[in-house]
Amino acid sequence: MIKIGIVGLGRIGKVHLHNIQHHIVEAQVVAACSRSEQSLDYAKQFGIEKLFTSYEKMLSEGGIDAVVVASPTALHFEHLKLAIAAQKHIFCEKPIDLSIENILEIKRHLSASQIKFMLGFNRRFDPNILKIKKELKDGRLGRTQSVKLISRDPGPPPMEFIKTSGGLFLDMAIHDFDLARHLMGSEVTQVFTTAGIFGQLPLETVGDVDTAVSVLKFEDNSFATIENSRNSSYGYDQRVEVFGDKGLVSSQNKSDDTVSFADQKGFLHPKPMKFFIERYKESYLNILNSFVQCLVNDTVPELSFEDGLRSMAISLAAKKSSEENRVVLLSEIV
Amino acid sequence: MIKIGIVGLGRIGKVHLHNIQHHIVEAQVVAACSRSEQSLDYAKQFGIEKLFTSYEKMLSEGGIDAVVVASPTALHFEHLKLAIAAQKHIFCEKPIDLSIENILEIKRHLSASQIKFMLGFNRRFDPNILKIKKELKDGRLGRTQSVKLISRDPGPPPMEFIKTSGGLFLDMAIHDFDLARHLMGSEVTQVFTTAGIFGQLPLETVGDVDTAVSVLKFEDNSFATIENSRNSSYGYDQRVEVFGDKGLVSSQNKSDDTVSFADQKGFLHPKPMKFFIERYKESYLNILNSFVQCLVNDTVPELSFEDGLRSMAISLAAKKSSEENRVVLLSEIV
Amino acid sequence: MIKIGIVGLGRIGKVHLHNIQHHIVEAQVVAACSRSEQSLDYAKQFGIEKLFTSYEKMLSEGGIDAVVVASPTALHFEHLKLAIAAQKHIFCEKPIDLSIENILEIKRHLSASQIKFMLGFNRRFDPNILKIKKELKDGRLGRTQSVKLISRDPGPPPMEFIKTSGGLFLDMAIHDFDLARHLMGSEVTQVFTTAGIFGQLPLETVGDVDTAVSVLKFEDNSFATIENSRNSSYGYDQRVEVFGDKGLVSSQNKSDDTVSFADQKGFLHPKPMKFFIERYKESYLNILNSFVQCLVNDTVPELSFEDGLRSMAISLAAKKSSEENRVVLLSEIV
Amino acid sequence: MIKIGIVGLGRIGKVHLHNIQHHIVEAQVVAACSRSEQSLDYAKQFGIEKLFTSYEKMLSEGGIDAVVVASPTALHFEHLKLAIAAQKHIFCEKPIDLSIENILEIKRHLSASQIKFMLGFNRRFDPNILKIKKELKDGRLGRTQSVKLISRDPGPPPMEFIKTSGGLFLDMAIHDFDLARHLMGSEVTQVFTTAGIFGQLPLETVGDVDTAVSVLKFEDNSFATIENSRNSSYGYDQRVEVFGDKGLVSSQNKSDDTVSFADQKGFLHPKPMKFFIERYKESYLNILNSFVQCLVNDTVPELSFEDGLRSMAISLAAKKSSEENRVVLLSEIV
Repeated sequence: MIKIGIVGLGRIGKVHLHNIQHHIVEAQVVAACSRSEQSLDYAKQFGIEKLFTSYEKMLSEGGIDAVVVASPTALHFEHLKLAIAAQKHIFCEKPIDLSIENILEIKRHLSASQIKFMLGFNRRFDPNILKIKKELKDGRLGRTQSVKLISRDPGPPPMEFIKTSGGLFLDMAIHDFDLARHLMGSEVTQVFTTAGIFGQLPLETVGDVDTAVSVLKFEDNSFATIENSRNSSYGYDQRVEVFGDKGLVSSQNKSDDTVSFADQKGFLHPKPMKFFIERYKESYLNILNSFVQCLVNDTVPELSFEDGLRSMAISLAAKKSSEENRVVLLSEIV
Repeated sequence: MIKIGIVGLGRIGKVHLHNIQHHIVEAQVVAACSRSEQSLDYAKQFGIEKLFTSYEKMLSEGGIDAVVVASPTALHFEHLKLAIAAQKHIFCEKPIDLSIENILEIKRHLSASQIKFMLGFNRRFDPNILKIKKELKDGRLGRTQSVKLISRDPGPPPMEFIKTSGGLFLDMAIHDFDLARHLMGSEVTQVFTTAGIFGQLPLETVGDVDTAVSVLKFEDNSFATIENSRNSSYGYDQRVEVFGDKGLVSSQNKSDDTVSFADQKGFLHPKPMKFFIERYKESYLNILNSFVQCLVNDTVPELSFEDGLRSMAISLAAKKSSEENRVVLLSEIV
Repeated sequence: MIKIGIVGLGRIGKVHLHNIQHHIVEAQVVAACSRSEQSLDYAKQFGIEKLFTSYEKMLSEGGIDAVVVASPTALHFEHLKLAIAAQKHIFCEKPIDLSIENILEIKRHLSASQIKFMLGFNRRFDPNILKIKKELKDGRLGRTQSVKLISRDPGPPPMEFIKTSGGLFLDMAIHDFDLARHLMGSEVTQVFTTAGIFGQLPLETVGDVDTAVSVLKFEDNSFATIENSRNSSYGYDQRVEVFGDKGLVSSQNKSDDTVSFADQKGFLHPKPMKFFIERYKESYLNILNSFVQCLVNDTVPELSFEDGLRSMAISLAAKKSSEENRVVLLSEIV
Repeated sequence: MIKIGIVGLGRIGKVHLHNIQHHIVEAQVVAACSRSEQSLDYAKQFGIEKLFTSYEKMLSEGGIDAVVVASPTALHFEHLKLAIAAQKHIFCEKPIDLSIENILEIKRHLSASQIKFMLGFNRRFDPNILKIKKELKDGRLGRTQSVKLISRDPGPPPMEFIKTSGGLFLDMAIHDFDLARHLMGSEVTQVFTTAGIFGQLPLETVGDVDTAVSVLKFEDNSFATIENSRNSSYGYDQRVEVFGDKGLVSSQNKSDDTVSFADQKGFLHPKPMKFFIERYKESYLNILNSFVQCLVNDTVPELSFEDGLRSMAISLAAKKSSEENRVVLLSEIV
């Protein structure tokens, strides 16, 4: 039985807590750390007895094998360093950090340790993506030529969040950049991005955008096109298409039901699922389970620290490209 | 070059005229007969020089090999007898006649002749149906167990038409009964139909209905369910499904375009095509072409007189079943 | 907190146990009864301490407010009588019993008590059905004319099960008969069913069939067509369509993912979800939750004992109709 | 009655000839010019009596009001100049010419004349595109943010054709560039294109590619992403999506039928229509009809010479961008 401590009990932290306690047999959350009393009360309902307001105490006194880092991004750097020092295995929410320097420092610490580290790019574990990746691995598409991702949010987060999140490229598009790398199985060499502001938020005041299209080029000459928007009037749009010599594999949006209504206007089909918590429900469970299996079976995590670093670099390249209206090489970034 | 005379230049007659003149290389309409001067003027535009108000004269002086009978149903009996006497090959719109006795009389005359006769159950030649029939013939479904037809009109015809058409079972459902026989490749032994009036027309005054569901049983124990309505608020609904041991083959409605519109209400897809003239456009051309090929190559028509007789009998059985609320055996009818 | 005892820990019993323990806040399973030690061990994992091999003991010593009856159908009669005698609220899996007499006896006992009884027609609580029912209630379809249900299993149960289940009409089609009643909001007056054996099982030896089509007529003149098969080669097929004056509402199958693959053969879309446990997952949770809410808020259950009786009567009428090849009135049954 | 002469009776020339003779009431092809005797024989079948091997003779002796230029691109320059000199109205297949200089010269001649000129960007007249454009004009999407075009051919043309066609950007993608301009209603300011060779043809020997993705930026800050391939294993892929503040409008591929087949592998839906002749059948008729209406009613053609020039410039910019791996401004081209 793997004993887990969790730090951060916001929206995502609660998802992980629920999943581990109810659905993962080989692990249990035994300790939780939060500055919010309400959150600690919440944790109690899941049978957790060791509740901490100090993260360091949880590491030293929690009796845990691994830590789930679901704290705000700004705290990741500190939380990761301490977890490594305490020799705990780590599941960390994305992004690792907003600074490449910090990421590289954590990388050095990790390399010198025996710690298993897994990054929370949960979408890789979505049933659609798992199936697409399997078809690609099985060679069903022949040589893959391009991938297209459409990723549009049903509405923007508050300005407060955006100010510290790193903006569209670092908090949102990074998922898509990771997926593109993952599906194509090749490394990105250059990025061209064009972006703009179409919604109501004063994003120009924080140097952010709400809409972007990015073209990534990979080492094997394949490419990706990624469309992002924070303002999708028709809901959370999450589609993937991979085009290869022998075929096309694509995933459509999922809906809460399959009911359509027909009248003289036509056939009305349901909207996509509300947002990521609902849409990627299975993937949050699957990724945590994958992490636990690594610890149980002493295997290499499917999502490495390097994956976090590379996607961050693509995000920074995309931002730079959109600002300078030119192709940016990844070698300029890291 | 097959020389054709056409009698009746209503909606369907014009479709056949257009198709033969513009799309069928081996045949030409050289003579036309109508009581309406306007219709004869219309025919002139298609290069037809021999225009008649007398059907008998067209048969004797038109210099034709075959006649397309597109006159009102009430005239079919007379028009068919005269065409047989004149030894002309015949393409006849459905239904042959509303009386089984008349149909059997025509059958006797035909049997004693060398005339090729083809009935206008055009839907058999719809690309969807052609493909489904081919898959059935190829054994892709294994043993066929059942067929389901949904056939709903976007609105009822005028009462005037209904009074002489024979009503829902004889002017509308007969197409579906024929399709069911055609697809299952077996003969119907019994019918159960339940029906009612849901629309605004005073159909009870003419002993008709606007909505019905029929269950046909075939000699091979397979069955058909057929749903008919004259009042489809969402347009002309024409769907087919055949269920067999090894799979399901189904056809969906066709639309004028494939454009959808998404907003906060969902995804709105287009309505079905307007009505039969638009929806079955290809089938009208295909069936006439099939008839012409029979004449050119001296082969047996794909749709026989017997097909007309059998479908008529099912229609009459369905009507009787709905009136008496009981299973009606086909042997009670003919 | 509602305290629940569960009897029967087969496939469905486990589903209910899991749902109550993990997802329903206001209730807890505190006692379980089974003759199988393995099942009781399973129950222990969910924190249940009161484990019984005697059902009567669970009723008297379990300290429970309500019982979930998930035992084999043949035991329902006894289990229900005892629960009523012990004054426990009851959630009972369908069917209540295979004999109308037994059902009527239970009905009498219940009527004389204050017990809340809910029957496990879970599909009414499927998100698709909930949405369709809401649209009907809201009058979006105007007057409803007909409902069509397609309900095909991916494969037959073992002969052993069929021998005691009552066969296709009583163990499988009963769900669809209930749904038809529920959606149309009217009572069935007559049934016509035609049925047959198309699969490999020797069903004729037990007087059963594997394929049927039923036409139900309702008091308000609307009707239902229901197609059932035990042998769907393409998976578990569960579709609903309701046709009304103002529109058509329909639900399609659900799949595990939305990934399609295109090559020179066409676009291959995924099969339906495996079987009822997967397909109706949400509905099992929703119905138990609805039952618990009735107890918490002292309200009338949405699914009454009468619902169980009526659907059973339709099932028996359908069986009789298929055997005698005639329309059967519900008044002949009960 | 508009009298038309046609030059060039290849694949597209024949389509126009057929459409005018059979479907356009207000015009007639009265003269045809070709160097191929076979083609002239073909024209005869459509009732054309004035057949020419000399284009100049057709202009002077054909008795025509307008000319349809369907000759090879390399002859357009000469054929256009002569038609202008002869004061004939012109319908010209795309592209006008491969050289910007030639195009500008024709433009000068045209400006000095009263001639109506229409360019053959037929896809604008596809029912899908007409509907999308209407919805955009009606403001249903609010402010349009981006358009996405997927345009993949089922196979490459022969190397012989490619050598003189101008390659992927000038013979194929130019349609999509025109559509993007048309739908967005704004002018392109810059292009970024990345391209490659994935198929078997030795395209590097002629400086061409078979696969490309282009990002266009418009004056109003909206953008387009366009994916082109010559090698679609699953058939001719033609999709459009426009994303705006208030919704998303999209068109899917069209198929010859709507028949699907389901078995244990899933649901197989039909491939897209074969290629452009089949897929854009209606648009070829609609565009010619639009041209004829301009002549009949003396109105301005919906597709101007300028449209041809602009799309050509985008094509050249895309080619340059892909060769130099950088953003190319339209102002660098013309």
